[in-house]
Amino acid sequence: MGKAKTAITPTRVEDYPEWYQQVIKAADMAENSPVRGCMVIKPWGYTLWENIQRVLDGMFKDTGHVNAYFPLFIPKSFLEREAKHVDGFAKECAVVTHSRLVDDGQGGLKPDGELEEPLIVRPTSETIIGASYAKWVQSYRDLPIMINQWANVVRWEMRTRLFLRTAEFLWQEGHTAHATSEEAMIETRQMLDVYADFAENWMAMPVIKGEKTEGERFPGADHTYSIEAMMQDRKALQAGTSHFLGQNFAKGCGIQFLSEEGKQEFAWTTSWGVSTRLVGGLIMTHSDDDGLVLPPKLAPKQVIILPVLHKAEDPNAILEYCDGIKKELEGQLFAGRAIQVEIDKRDLRGGDKRWEWVKKGAPIILEVGPRDMANGSVFAFRRDTGEKAGVNRDEFCATAVNRLNEIQDNLLARAKAHREENTREINSKEEFIEFFTPENKDKPEIHGGFAMAHWGGSAEDEDALAKEYKVTIRCVPLADGEPGVCPFTGNPSPKRVVFAKSY
Amino acid sequence: MGKAKTAITPTRVEDYPEWYQQVIKAADMAENSPVRGCMVIKPWGYTLWENIQRVLDGMFKDTGHVNAYFPLFIPKSFLEREAKHVDGFAKECAVVTHSRLVDDGQGGLKPDGELEEPLIVRPTSETIIGASYAKWVQSYRDLPIMINQWANVVRWEMRTRLFLRTAEFLWQEGHTAHATSEEAMIETRQMLDVYADFAENWMAMPVIKGEKTEGERFPGADHTYSIEAMMQDRKALQAGTSHFLGQNFAKGCGIQFLSEEGKQEFAWTTSWGVSTRLVGGLIMTHSDDDGLVLPPKLAPKQVIILPVLHKAEDPNAILEYCDGIKKELEGQLFAGRAIQVEIDKRDLRGGDKRWEWVKKGAPIILEVGPRDMANGSVFAFRRDTGEKAGVNRDEFCATAVNRLNEIQDNLLARAKAHREENTREINSKEEFIEFFTPENKDKPEIHGGFAMAHWGGSAEDEDALAKEYKVTIRCVPLADGEPGVCPFTGNPSPKRVVFAKSY
Repeated sequence: MGKAKTAITPTRVEDYPEWYQQVIKAADMAENSPVRGCMVIKPWGYTLWENIQRVLDGMFKDTGHVNAYFPLFIPKSFLEREAKHVDGFAKECAVVTHSRLVDDGQGGLKPDGELEEPLIVRPTSETIIGASYAKWVQSYRDLPIMINQWANVVRWEMRTRLFLRTAEFLWQEGHTAHATSEEAMIETRQMLDVYADFAENWMAMPVIKGEKTEGERFPGADHTYSIEAMMQDRKALQAGTSHFLGQNFAKGCGIQFLSEEGKQEFAWTTSWGVSTRLVGGLIMTHSDDDGLVLPPKLAPKQVIILPVLHKAEDPNAILEYCDGIKKELEGQLFAGRAIQVEIDKRDLRGGDKRWEWVKKGAPIILEVGPRDMANGSVFAFRRDTGEKAGVNRDEFCATAVNRLNEIQDNLLARAKAHREENTREINSKEEFIEFFTPENKDKPEIHGGFAMAHWGGSAEDEDALAKEYKVTIRCVPLADGEPGVCPFTGNPSPKRVVFAKSY
Repeated sequence: MGKAKTAITPTRVEDYPEWYQQVIKAADMAENSPVRGCMVIKPWGYTLWENIQRVLDGMFKDTGHVNAYFPLFIPKSFLEREAKHVDGFAKECAVVTHSRLVDDGQGGLKPDGELEEPLIVRPTSETIIGASYAKWVQSYRDLPIMINQWANVVRWEMRTRLFLRTAEFLWQEGHTAHATSEEAMIETRQMLDVYADFAENWMAMPVIKGEKTEGERFPGADHTYSIEAMMQDRKALQAGTSHFLGQNFAKGCGIQFLSEEGKQEFAWTTSWGVSTRLVGGLIMTHSDDDGLVLPPKLAPKQVIILPVLHKAEDPNAILEYCDGIKKELEGQLFAGRAIQVEIDKRDLRGGDKRWEWVKKGAPIILEVGPRDMANGSVFAFRRDTGEKAGVNRDEFCATAVNRLNEIQDNLLARAKAHREENTREINSKEEFIEFFTPENKDKPEIHGGFAMAHWGGSAEDEDALAKEYKVTIRCVPLADGEPGVCPFTGNPSPKRVVFAKSY
């Protein structure tokens, strides 16, 4: 499409992290705010998040959950209670200490009204939600409780990156309580399946479902499960987690019930969440050196129509022609709702407009000028493959849903192929080192990605590996595997695990 | 329906504020949290809010707005800038001063990592959003910006009441920027119309659209418009506001643009919002001494089916019969989506279950026992009127949408009649005093409600009136009115205004 070699500078190969920032900028999705570590999610990025929310929310409701809302603030004492049980307790958080601003006598304002007990802006809500559940649950008849919350949370991250790691981010957190361990485990695994289903079938992002090792577990969880995706730089992204909390939080919060047999018992709880990080994962899975590429099922707009008016004798006729196409497309269902179409009528050069929508990742762009109209056709551009061709207007409308599905399928297939190409069975420590040596990064035949290796080490062994090679066990896959021998320790291993560098 | 005279104690007449709290409790909508002033919104209350959100969000998008998300925190310096211009600057807010919790050496945690500049949890977002707009706007081509945000905000309220006034609440805040004053005023008034439309046609809550007087204006606004509703205790509730901010915030934040004529100009901005307070208004508009009454268009469930199983020979047959009704109802559209139906299969006494749904305000409750099934009928209870009758099953299904529309219309008509009965033209100070004297509260023929009176006083006169009688000017209605003479000052008055006690 001319103009420049690629729309994004630098390219992925030149500087992947910087490419990522430039894709977001070029697509006008988000930017840093004047508040350190907090981002502004701009309309194009936020609409993508709204689409993610809408679909996930439907999946949560279909699996028996309801939404509710709990306070933004957590009393310090709640975290102290938790901190006692939990070694890896996260202490980087926003602490509210005052309830007022007053004149400081120098033309400014200063904090006043010191609180008796500081409040923490929720980094996650297990403790505050647990306090409610403890009140609500008396008998086995009150169980299960299956609640989800859409909320903002704050973790005072030092090194932030748009969508991937920000001080404030948006997420959902499911919190459920059950009468039995079995039921809680079924719920934990069900929600992992929901996440995997969403990642693959909506985001077109293939994931591996697995369990985290002890060192990577959520503090206070008995088991943490995650979905792990491979980005285009072959690093892993943890895209969602589901925790089986056993009775740990129930004991901490006092969630007790009288069982059917008349015994006082602690409930079994779970929690699970995905966040705006998914947007980062989506960007890094599909985008290319011309900018954002969006899976049609989640794209804010699926078809952009660009009327080419500057040479037209009768611009209104072209606009009407475009409007007719828009209406016909909007009358068709794709991914559960009407096809989303926008006619970009702005008075800009056609080339500039087209490039803008390329960079924004619109799955299909139609250009319509006087000649196209005269021929009863449209000029169609497909974002994922770059294919472009004149198409009969009626034929385009009749096949639009198929085209969108094709793009969706192609993105998933492409991402799967990329993951397969960069997943290697590793059977010795030497191979492992070679695979993860940064100097080999230009030798894709040996470098990086997912190393499937046997593991029989301890948490300390894992730590040592992480320190030396910056590689961690992303998960122990849930899928079946063959037993073997750990190349690091010589211990027996029940199955291969996924090693990778990660975000 | 037997059992007790009324499900809610006290009744509205006995103690209206306490009745309100008890309705919320009996309907299981929300409760106070361990965090002072913050509420927990429970699923039944939250689903109502979700329905409000869904409908309003659609109305915002239909009027050309998009959603985005801005930071939770506002740097202190942003508010200092604003405080200089604004007398009524709200200083009660949550102030974040630290970014870490550390061991306090006594088994607890203490704040650490003091921030260079304190951060304020947003009480509203004009300043932080304005900072973004200042970056985004360069030329008239970048205008208008029409963005809405769904968010939580915090104002450190001393006396809180569930939904009506809480320290943290949920809301939407629209923030738009325009090239001309006219365009910004059209937007301001358009959003007031959207709110009034929503209040009347979805919440069944009639409202008066009007402009606030100077003393009740949003700090920094040139004009503040509101919708005002009358609650059943005849007090006014401000249910939504739309502000014309002139160039005040644009100057404060530096939102400047190069006009079509090549001149550097400040933008004209608006902001408008409604909050979870709407839920409080809805409760107080329709509910009765048996609990919550919900307008069907926003009810979490419109039809509850209660199978009566304890005397049944074949409980499964009854459940199947109920399921058939549910499916038939769910196949019908009401208020833009499928009728929402729940079969309550819990093993509780029928009377207890029925009362629970009465208190939760379900518009229609169907009871289905063996005899009903044998007759091919259902026993239908209508929440708003208390009517109950056996109805042929097919007839019920065929008329369900009509019934729901009838209930919706009845609630609006009832609320309108209540407002009309309690709105009086007041022509002298004596009448005014009599109307608002608390001792007259048991004489509805003379007491309380909306006093439509002429007004020609100053802001100080208005203040004095508010201090003496606890009555304020709720708004100057936008509707046409006749000029007259102010009974307090003798000054001329362009039209009657609405005086009332208020929430």
